[in-house]
Amino acid sequence: MNGNSYPSKLLKDAVEAISSLPGIGSRSALRLAIHLLGQPSENVHRFTSAIDRLADEVRYCRICNMICDDEVCPVCSDQRRDHSTLCVVENVRDVMSIEDTGQYHGVYHVLGGIISPIDGIGPSDIAIAPLIDRLRVSDAGVEVILALSGDVEGETTSFYIYRQIMSLGRNDIRVSTLARGLGFGDDLEYADSLTLGRSIINRCEFKP
Amino acid sequence: MNGNSYPSKLLKDAVEAISSLPGIGSRSALRLAIHLLGQPSENVHRFTSAIDRLADEVRYCRICNMICDDEVCPVCSDQRRDHSTLCVVENVRDVMSIEDTGQYHGVYHVLGGIISPIDGIGPSDIAIAPLIDRLRVSDAGVEVILALSGDVEGETTSFYIYRQIMSLGRNDIRVSTLARGLGFGDDLEYADSLTLGRSIINRCEFKP
Repeated sequence: MNGNSYPSKLLKDAVEAISSLPGIGSRSALRLAIHLLGQPSENVHRFTSAIDRLADEVRYCRICNMICDDEVCPVCSDQRRDHSTLCVVENVRDVMSIEDTGQYHGVYHVLGGIISPIDGIGPSDIAIAPLIDRLRVSDAGVEVILALSGDVEGETTSFYIYRQIMSLGRNDIRVSTLARGLGFGDDLEYADSLTLGRSIINRCEFKP
Repeated sequence: MNGNSYPSKLLKDAVEAISSLPGIGSRSALRLAIHLLGQPSENVHRFTSAIDRLADEVRYCRICNMICDDEVCPVCSDQRRDHSTLCVVENVRDVMSIEDTGQYHGVYHVLGGIISPIDGIGPSDIAIAPLIDRLRVSDAGVEVILALSGDVEGETTSFYIYRQIMSLGRNDIRVSTLARGLGFGDDLEYADSLTLGRSIINRCEFKP
């Protein structure tokens, strides 16, 4: 047995499969594989079948493209929510984060990705066209909140969507974005200057 | 949809399955589940089947209890290795770490766990009896290197094995353990006092 070699091909295959996940290196993957080996095999099959079923049976809401189990997701089918406010997010994780705040009562549009030329993801690879179609057929005024991340990909995607919306030529569609600034409880001393600068530019009325 | 709830039961099941792995919290599990959803389903099935096959088809060397694909592992079947030196380790990960050093040419005995009353793991749950049997039938002198971790469980297991070996009443079996002390390149200033103390007690001849 040479250094760095595995005594078993089955083990090597499993470690390679696990380390293909983002953020899991080969050492962690080996630790996880050995953990799984220590489990009764029914537990391992329960683990793998939950993942297989997710891949095979998952559906997407035909309105907002969110992962769901039915044709329409729980948010879109909830009549108590404000269907004239539409929050555009990258993925279902962002939906869950926003739902956790308890501050949002509108609906969503899930892009399922972000424009990223470096990863070969263009505007047609994510659900931008369905968003524009959705806005085109809306008869009342709509507010679109672009809730994408603040990095280059997020900004590019926001700008692309903004231009597409503008090209609809509708003056009853408002486009907004998330406020950015210092976090609550943040110390000025430790804030990065870009964030602090934006906090000054976007200063708002002091309401004690 | 309430805060902290999932829009899909399939997603929730997969996230729960993934977060059952050690060191993976529910946020990381959600990130991994969403990553898997973004993959073609063949890739996901390749991932899960590698894990299923590991659980179903893995074998253990009948001599040293190491994970392997055949009846006897590559180390035990290698006649160039020193079969009179036997390194006792917790699991195959430790074997791979020791093999990576390139400094060991003996064979192994893999316990497959460590005595840990808190986890309900006693001496009979790990491969101690096969180790003692293996020593009992050995006709030549043997050196047993106890290469277990330095925590309470490791020390307990080492001590238990030592007593079992002593009870064989053989004076041609030597028991040794790994040297412990400061790591190479370690600064005295930052060493914990237990390690530094052991480094002084176990000091060795200076050979420039």
